[in-house]
Amino acid sequence: MAFLILAPSSRTSAWEKEIRKAEPDLDLRVWPDTGDPDDVTFALCWKHPPGVLNRFSNLKCIASMGAGVDHLLQDPALPEVPIVRVVDPSMARSMTEYLLMAVLFRMRQLDRYWQDRLQRTWHPRVPEQAASVRIGIMGLGQLGSDAAQAFFSLRFPVSAWSRTPKTAEGIDTFCGEADFAPFLSGLRVLICLLPLTDRTRGILNRHTFEMLPDGAYLVNSARGEHLVEEDLIAALDSGKLSGACLDVFHTEPLPREHPFWGRPEITITPHISSLTNPKAVCPGIVDNYRRMKSGLPLRHLVDRQRGY
Amino acid sequence: MAFLILAPSSRTSAWEKEIRKAEPDLDLRVWPDTGDPDDVTFALCWKHPPGVLNRFSNLKCIASMGAGVDHLLQDPALPEVPIVRVVDPSMARSMTEYLLMAVLFRMRQLDRYWQDRLQRTWHPRVPEQAASVRIGIMGLGQLGSDAAQAFFSLRFPVSAWSRTPKTAEGIDTFCGEADFAPFLSGLRVLICLLPLTDRTRGILNRHTFEMLPDGAYLVNSARGEHLVEEDLIAALDSGKLSGACLDVFHTEPLPREHPFWGRPEITITPHISSLTNPKAVCPGIVDNYRRMKSGLPLRHLVDRQRGY
Repeated sequence: MAFLILAPSSRTSAWEKEIRKAEPDLDLRVWPDTGDPDDVTFALCWKHPPGVLNRFSNLKCIASMGAGVDHLLQDPALPEVPIVRVVDPSMARSMTEYLLMAVLFRMRQLDRYWQDRLQRTWHPRVPEQAASVRIGIMGLGQLGSDAAQAFFSLRFPVSAWSRTPKTAEGIDTFCGEADFAPFLSGLRVLICLLPLTDRTRGILNRHTFEMLPDGAYLVNSARGEHLVEEDLIAALDSGKLSGACLDVFHTEPLPREHPFWGRPEITITPHISSLTNPKAVCPGIVDNYRRMKSGLPLRHLVDRQRGY
Repeated sequence: MAFLILAPSSRTSAWEKEIRKAEPDLDLRVWPDTGDPDDVTFALCWKHPPGVLNRFSNLKCIASMGAGVDHLLQDPALPEVPIVRVVDPSMARSMTEYLLMAVLFRMRQLDRYWQDRLQRTWHPRVPEQAASVRIGIMGLGQLGSDAAQAFFSLRFPVSAWSRTPKTAEGIDTFCGEADFAPFLSGLRVLICLLPLTDRTRGILNRHTFEMLPDGAYLVNSARGEHLVEEDLIAALDSGKLSGACLDVFHTEPLPREHPFWGRPEITITPHISSLTNPKAVCPGIVDNYRRMKSGLPLRHLVDRQRGY
């Protein structure tokens, strides 16, 4: 019975520390020092090399270090064992704070004032007020619900779109493909918080942008692959979109030659909208490890078919 | 009985339109076309030339176009008639949205990411979360109360300091000079929303900054004269303050040669934190005009001694 941390591109010292704190007697191993692969029953993963999980013949559970599990499901040779993800209310809060920032600085045109200061130019612009800025949130899971409530409490009109029907106090909810156009048609700001699945890959594309009002603003803090990057450039060039705030990209770090760097309408943040805090999530991960050992039902199970 | 608009540096067409809408039969005059000065009984002012109000021997009330009245009280020859100010809940809301933006973008270090993008540099920094960022608001009137409640609802710890004792749900309140040091000692962000009076002029000075924890952040969206500008530069140089977001300045527009332009730690906005909306406030101004005519008590009277 060994617990393996398998995250070759991440610094794992904080994870090790928090897992040991939660379960001091654990047989903890860190990739690539796995010891006898047959000992490993539980693997905590982030962007593992595809195929390597098959080395562990006694693997009984795979846990994701983040809220998203697309990095796991992209492995065509992923072992057929249960997958669990982390759930951390403070991650949702961190995301909400990022989204409020993205919307508020755009309403105040702080991006333009930052451009102005390079020329030492004083050029006031009338700010937008929350009551006239309809926010549209794609995805109404843990992250989307927290964000929707925060925007609503600050008196923004809020719409939300999800795969299955959901309701939330004060929020205009839309669901499924038939509702997609009506959802988009009234928005000033479109926020993507969807999980990355085969259905949602590339959902931020020219057809979606065409259904938005002219001059709408895009915020993507889900996954880079939700966005068709060349369609965003075209929508900015045509004026269909007025700008975007992006925290995620097809390739991270964003390459120096990428056209997004040269567009002042695009605010770029380096994937900092919501960082997983090992201290907050390790107790839940260790709880799932114990449940696996005892044969109890796992928490926060991922539906492979659905993709999240 | 004539109603005079006296705002030489402002465009007044929206004000004229909204005042006519509220009282179509009004004898409305716009400076400098005052007609017979003895007709004028009510003057709606913004930055009037000092002394000119004495030309109107039958003046019975002076109204400020904005929430602040320091532009009136700075006139040593101001006639001894009642002064009223405007109160507009949407102005408070606009200020609150500005303050949330200022704090949230600082927590995410968006100012640094804006610097990074000039070099096309990808450099993630761990964001602060609301629960660890204590906000301190100077001034707990209409603006301060609205802001305090909004920060509290987003789970920031909030302190507020006012001249007279006040209480507000969820807010740690401090009052008077004896409480000033304890108020300042625990803050991550200091926000000034005070009225400008003889007591508050220059209150953002080196002695105040010294009582803050190292690395605190300053937001001033009240009046430029609250801040001793050279003390801010010194506090940034010493690291006492980590940065500032300023919407108001001693001289506006901020002169091209002003040292603030050259400091990336200072975010500069051109006095847009809260613009008075003529549509929202003109009905209240005309209500006070009618009250004056009928001898009824005026609303939102200013206390000259107090200065607001």
